[in-house]
Amino acid sequence: MTAKNNPGGTVRRGRRPGTSTTRQTILDAARARFATDGFAATTIRRVAADAGVNPSLVMQFFTSKDELFAAVMSISPKSLSRFSTVFDGPDEHLGERVVRAYLEVWDGDPEDSEPLMAMLRGAIVNAQAGSQLREFIQARLLEGMGTRRVDDPDAALRAGLASSMLVGLVVGRRIVGVPILAEAETETLVSLVAPAIQSVLT
Amino acid sequence: MTAKNNPGGTVRRGRRPGTSTTRQTILDAARARFATDGFAATTIRRVAADAGVNPSLVMQFFTSKDELFAAVMSISPKSLSRFSTVFDGPDEHLGERVVRAYLEVWDGDPEDSEPLMAMLRGAIVNAQAGSQLREFIQARLLEGMGTRRVDDPDAALRAGLASSMLVGLVVGRRIVGVPILAEAETETLVSLVAPAIQSVLT
Repeated sequence: MTAKNNPGGTVRRGRRPGTSTTRQTILDAARARFATDGFAATTIRRVAADAGVNPSLVMQFFTSKDELFAAVMSISPKSLSRFSTVFDGPDEHLGERVVRAYLEVWDGDPEDSEPLMAMLRGAIVNAQAGSQLREFIQARLLEGMGTRRVDDPDAALRAGLASSMLVGLVVGRRIVGVPILAEAETETLVSLVAPAIQSVLT
Repeated sequence: MTAKNNPGGTVRRGRRPGTSTTRQTILDAARARFATDGFAATTIRRVAADAGVNPSLVMQFFTSKDELFAAVMSISPKSLSRFSTVFDGPDEHLGERVVRAYLEVWDGDPEDSEPLMAMLRGAIVNAQAGSQLREFIQARLLEGMGTRRVDDPDAALRAGLASSMLVGLVVGRRIVGVPILAEAETETLVSLVAPAIQSVLT
């Protein structure tokens, strides 16, 4: 899979020419496999076989199945880690932390928010994309609330409710664009919504 | 616009034959006018002129611009009145009343929920439909929170936030279909979400 020579004879720096090709081959295989089998049933091993590479190479490029899926969806690692770390930390300011993280990702850099928007639009109009997204969300919820689940059987449901309510806020603000929501300051939204999300989560 | 005769010569009961034609003519004119001018700028008078009927006839069929728009969107009068009455009544159980009304309409009769779903899908993928919906929502929010606005400048924003969060819950449960949300009992959802909506609204 790696290019063995440099036909142009020019001096190249950084990544070897074959790297991006291999990465793209894995991404294409993953996209097709997620679409066929869904998020839950797809394995790194299977994607590697489809791409004709070793599973360790897939892990080397993408670290985990979550990150591979995010890459297929063009979601930046920054956005992904922003979402995955909000459940960490003390309960006291959990609501505020979660609301702020959501709004910052969606209100921030279009480079980060556009792929999320595309994923959401896609999931709403296309059943297959919807099923990939819901399996991905469900897996992350169960994982993210893992430590809390011992004490509260509703922990994953609470996380799911909070997420869906925040996505609704984003849909109203950014996709449907209801003026009163679109024009509100981020800090106003955080102050009005954080206590609500806190109450759903804890 | 009214059919003047009955060519088949059969005995008809109930509505005169012309009624459904006139109603449909008004609906078609309204659909086109809402699409061209948006919800806010469209008037009953203008729709009547487009349909070639008297404005009082439009009012006779549809009562108000809100109901005319709902009819264009195939939203049942039952759903419309369910949404428009939730803000009435004492503040104490407002959160619970609002959550229950939303869930009942969306979880209930598909005849009532399908048009809402179609409207939501439409607004998300089609900018023109989105702009009609957001003007309609904005107008209803300002109206619904009318009595509360004197004391709280954020009243309409609070109503908008609560609505968008509940729509998010419905999208997660019914459109994306995240299993943990889709499988939850209505009463479980009411008990987890009502305090949050109460905190956003009051």
